[in-house]
Amino acid sequence: MHRIGIVGARGFTGAELLRLGVRHSAYELTYVTSESQAGQPLDTAFATLHGATRLRFSAFDAREAADAADAFFLALPDGEAMKTAPLLLEQRKKIVDLSGDFRVRDRATYERWYGREHLSPELLGETVYGMPELHPEVRDARLVANPGCYATAMLLALAPLFASGRIDPGTVIVDAKSGVSGAGGRVGMKEEFSFPAVNENLRAYSVTGHRHVAETEQELALLAGRAPEEVRLSFTPHLLPITRGIYATAYASLGRAVDLGTLIQEHRLFYRDAPFVHVAGDAIPEIRHVIGSNVCRIGMALDERVGRVIVMAVIDNLVKGAAGQAIQNLNVMLGLPETAGLEAPAIYP
Amino acid sequence: MHRIGIVGARGFTGAELLRLGVRHSAYELTYVTSESQAGQPLDTAFATLHGATRLRFSAFDAREAADAADAFFLALPDGEAMKTAPLLLEQRKKIVDLSGDFRVRDRATYERWYGREHLSPELLGETVYGMPELHPEVRDARLVANPGCYATAMLLALAPLFASGRIDPGTVIVDAKSGVSGAGGRVGMKEEFSFPAVNENLRAYSVTGHRHVAETEQELALLAGRAPEEVRLSFTPHLLPITRGIYATAYASLGRAVDLGTLIQEHRLFYRDAPFVHVAGDAIPEIRHVIGSNVCRIGMALDERVGRVIVMAVIDNLVKGAAGQAIQNLNVMLGLPETAGLEAPAIYP
Amino acid sequence: MHRIGIVGARGFTGAELLRLGVRHSAYELTYVTSESQAGQPLDTAFATLHGATRLRFSAFDAREAADAADAFFLALPDGEAMKTAPLLLEQRKKIVDLSGDFRVRDRATYERWYGREHLSPELLGETVYGMPELHPEVRDARLVANPGCYATAMLLALAPLFASGRIDPGTVIVDAKSGVSGAGGRVGMKEEFSFPAVNENLRAYSVTGHRHVAETEQELALLAGRAPEEVRLSFTPHLLPITRGIYATAYASLGRAVDLGTLIQEHRLFYRDAPFVHVAGDAIPEIRHVIGSNVCRIGMALDERVGRVIVMAVIDNLVKGAAGQAIQNLNVMLGLPETAGLEAPAIYP
Amino acid sequence: MHRIGIVGARGFTGAELLRLGVRHSAYELTYVTSESQAGQPLDTAFATLHGATRLRFSAFDAREAADAADAFFLALPDGEAMKTAPLLLEQRKKIVDLSGDFRVRDRATYERWYGREHLSPELLGETVYGMPELHPEVRDARLVANPGCYATAMLLALAPLFASGRIDPGTVIVDAKSGVSGAGGRVGMKEEFSFPAVNENLRAYSVTGHRHVAETEQELALLAGRAPEEVRLSFTPHLLPITRGIYATAYASLGRAVDLGTLIQEHRLFYRDAPFVHVAGDAIPEIRHVIGSNVCRIGMALDERVGRVIVMAVIDNLVKGAAGQAIQNLNVMLGLPETAGLEAPAIYP
Repeated sequence: MHRIGIVGARGFTGAELLRLGVRHSAYELTYVTSESQAGQPLDTAFATLHGATRLRFSAFDAREAADAADAFFLALPDGEAMKTAPLLLEQRKKIVDLSGDFRVRDRATYERWYGREHLSPELLGETVYGMPELHPEVRDARLVANPGCYATAMLLALAPLFASGRIDPGTVIVDAKSGVSGAGGRVGMKEEFSFPAVNENLRAYSVTGHRHVAETEQELALLAGRAPEEVRLSFTPHLLPITRGIYATAYASLGRAVDLGTLIQEHRLFYRDAPFVHVAGDAIPEIRHVIGSNVCRIGMALDERVGRVIVMAVIDNLVKGAAGQAIQNLNVMLGLPETAGLEAPAIYP
Repeated sequence: MHRIGIVGARGFTGAELLRLGVRHSAYELTYVTSESQAGQPLDTAFATLHGATRLRFSAFDAREAADAADAFFLALPDGEAMKTAPLLLEQRKKIVDLSGDFRVRDRATYERWYGREHLSPELLGETVYGMPELHPEVRDARLVANPGCYATAMLLALAPLFASGRIDPGTVIVDAKSGVSGAGGRVGMKEEFSFPAVNENLRAYSVTGHRHVAETEQELALLAGRAPEEVRLSFTPHLLPITRGIYATAYASLGRAVDLGTLIQEHRLFYRDAPFVHVAGDAIPEIRHVIGSNVCRIGMALDERVGRVIVMAVIDNLVKGAAGQAIQNLNVMLGLPETAGLEAPAIYP
Repeated sequence: MHRIGIVGARGFTGAELLRLGVRHSAYELTYVTSESQAGQPLDTAFATLHGATRLRFSAFDAREAADAADAFFLALPDGEAMKTAPLLLEQRKKIVDLSGDFRVRDRATYERWYGREHLSPELLGETVYGMPELHPEVRDARLVANPGCYATAMLLALAPLFASGRIDPGTVIVDAKSGVSGAGGRVGMKEEFSFPAVNENLRAYSVTGHRHVAETEQELALLAGRAPEEVRLSFTPHLLPITRGIYATAYASLGRAVDLGTLIQEHRLFYRDAPFVHVAGDAIPEIRHVIGSNVCRIGMALDERVGRVIVMAVIDNLVKGAAGQAIQNLNVMLGLPETAGLEAPAIYP
Repeated sequence: MHRIGIVGARGFTGAELLRLGVRHSAYELTYVTSESQAGQPLDTAFATLHGATRLRFSAFDAREAADAADAFFLALPDGEAMKTAPLLLEQRKKIVDLSGDFRVRDRATYERWYGREHLSPELLGETVYGMPELHPEVRDARLVANPGCYATAMLLALAPLFASGRIDPGTVIVDAKSGVSGAGGRVGMKEEFSFPAVNENLRAYSVTGHRHVAETEQELALLAGRAPEEVRLSFTPHLLPITRGIYATAYASLGRAVDLGTLIQEHRLFYRDAPFVHVAGDAIPEIRHVIGSNVCRIGMALDERVGRVIVMAVIDNLVKGAAGQAIQNLNVMLGLPETAGLEAPAIYP
């Protein structure tokens, strides 16, 4: 049993780490923090955990944390994790950070997209971008940056096409749609996430300026062996009237003609060892195929009239887009089976 | 054309008064207030009014109000309307108040249910409870208390049964379900009304203690010719994952056996002159039958094994449960056709 | 490992048995039938099972079934299970039947509520009503009738009150609300369950005539030690615009005054050994507290003005209301821990 | 008063023509057909019309139709309207056809996209494409082809950019999302539109092959003064878990650099006389801004890093995308104010 800590467990991502973590047969949750809930039993904040744990929230304290657990998930807001991570690394702990603080390797790029100074730039060099499908070196990392939810869907949709060089990297457009839980801790406090503002509605947001673009371009450039500035995508997220789930519809122009079967085959080959990526071929993926599970399901189409490939990827933003992928990363870091604690099928209907 | 003012137009009820008011052929909206939006065009706060009005919000000022309009809707929070109403009555204006401040005629009962002192008790005697189906004297009123949304559904469901004396008034239970817009101005600021807290969910609230019980018991006792304390109902509201609509399911024991046909006939007779009450007989009403309209649709069943009648009533809480009924009341007060401005059918699907 | 068969696995209940069954550490699914899907891989019909099983649907054949598995879930329509059960009992198999065929012990009562002749009346005497919280003799049964979803919520809400004799059994009213998946196999084929007919809507249905009344009255009379005809409840189900979940709001008059604390204590005592029943005291339960889990969460209130107790119970209709309770029953029948395969917390948010 | 007929009024589009038509001050509905409902009162099929009309459905008969009304809406399935239109034109009636039968002027293009022979090709030459914002000649037409719902959103989003020549017509991608009512008559009969298949879900459909592409390319080529084959767009529709509304997000590469303000100004100029098109500038449009109204609301963004303009357009698919635009067209054909019967603001919240 590995003793596991969760720092900042009051939000949706923390709740999902708890939901999955209490059932993980190789994890023992030993330290869970929330500044606002310190001292309260977990199941006071989360009625769904009634009977599943007797743990109480702690207020974060680095020494206490170090005594209590061996590996940590950080589910803190952007800007906070970069302060906490060094304290735990000093204590020789393994960390999966779910914030955006360590995802962008280039400090200047980080500061441009995030609009803040990076307080632990010395860690950027060693951080591994935590998508085991692309970065097997997660295995040896002590600090893993868990990808953004949109970035996860975009990267899994497009990685094989960038690796194979089949598409023109300047033509990529990703139109994505997300459930409300993706907005995280801001949801409870803003009129724009109240039920009447979301229900029977759809709206785009952060048009041209969403932060997940930075990490996605970084990773796609790596895959293509291009300079970072050669990969520039247009990305528009939309807010769906659902609680969980992301649908990413990616469009890209093909360098030269190729049939759909070949593209599907290349996708399948690329993900042949990836237990959580289901390439459904020319079948259309649906959000309900993955809710509650760590699966990314991918469908593909070819618009022959215009020479474009269309790739559709669905994930549960709280699982493969956050807590599930974090557990997948920590499993790899701890030498556990990659799928440990993540075997449950999606909930249907 | 009657010059109409709306005091406190920033919430859902105010928005609905505006939606219906801008299209009312005998109303000219001349004065619309919001303290937080003063000076802003209405269609800045409400994109749906783009092109429908060039009016701007004012900050409330009694003298300005008196100059600008002849009749007023007060869409203020409970406790505020009782301060504003006297200022406008002094100026000989007609008022329909949509708050709970003037619905309960007995001051002590008001103060017990609302937990606050009444600041204008001298007006309670002359206020008319604004349900034209029960109170034709709305015609001559200068201050009308617009009923609560739940009270409207309960009263329309049960009034004929109390008037006919067919049921035992001590056996009434109303189980009601409402969309989120019924929560009014509190919606944008509370986690409990955020999308993830309402979507795919249902919960009861204010169990045994909802304020609308007070006015409902008052009116039912009047109908039955009973002392106020003889009518005591159990009422449980539930929050539905929809934006608009109330479903009230009322249960009551019959004094002696009667067939369903007779009960339906008596309901129809009671409402023969009520243009907005549709007695659907033994057909089951649905919330979608009334959304956007001022209609209350009523269905009935008889549980012969236990001698109970079940009455189901549906309304749009923002229309017949608030703004629509307010316009219906003002129409009557102004000598206009009762249905003026309220003729549009419900939106379907 | 117990070899488990599921007969009739194409509907929502079958899907849920599969979702839970593929992860059950003491079950091996060896035989799964669907007449329409015979020969197809399970994950063709259910994309959510991709990677979780390589099994294919069979067409039901009693001999094949007997060879393949030791215990069976029957997820067949009402009227079909009574034909299939005897064939498997002959082969000395254990059965949990999820239809309504064996829930009502009295043949005449069955035939009155279900409107059809019972074809295996000889089995009614030995069938155990499958709610382990009320019937520990499930342990020794070879045929268990899994309760109806509404009946489960009603019984768990009311059982302690009937057992203690605190309430007048002639005053019980249950107003229930269910998600669409409760309608089972009929959903895909009827306009009334299409998205536009359910979304932003609520409607009552089967008013006064729902079949689950029969089994609920049977069990409540047993608990109270009364003759069957002495317990008559009014029950009204409503269709919620959600996929999963039941909310039952039960009202009953107390024989004599008692405080809420005592009632809560008695409920807790009654369920002290029931791992899936969470008595939340005077907290209001919400459907989202239990989605995906086998938990029934119960809240209570006292309407002192009228001497009524109000009990609110929530379940996931597909888990505690169907597949989860069926697994709970089979666990007990097989001598496994009651909670095996049912430990996952509810999904939140 | 103009005597108006609606042929094929049983579906969602027919229902919306009725909702808007019964309140139109210059229309008298005199003839409404449905083969399946012939003889029934309209308010039997549509409870929302209770009290609004006493009309009954007829079975279609060309002579009866000719006697009863002067102008007709055809709300028939694709393939049926082309049979009915000639019968009414012979009788010198004006027609707005809401099917796809007459939208594509080129017969071969029609037959390729629709997969059927055109039975009234002689009418294609005189038919006017019914978008008054682009085709003022609607005024003089006797047969108007009402645009498809997606085509309406796409065209209003992109028309000014094609007219000005600012964009490269080979780079256009439209990612669109629609509520379920857009699926029309098929909704009640297919499992894929049942509540559990749509709720908490999103899926793409008709990827690369949706019929509305044909009319959109035709109109954009006309605007750009290009040959039809020079305009080829990628279009992917997605099914939203809402009842009404379309969100079209359009992406196009700019020929040369231009600032956003100029683009917005050109859009506003293009639509300066269009009462139903609201160019919201750089504000993000939302579906809830237009539900129930004939408004198309448009927002714009510039992705400067990649030289792309992003245009977002929202409509209510049943109003501006179907029945409302049909009334707008007939108003123009009859010399009525373009906005007659279409003045009601969107329903909010």
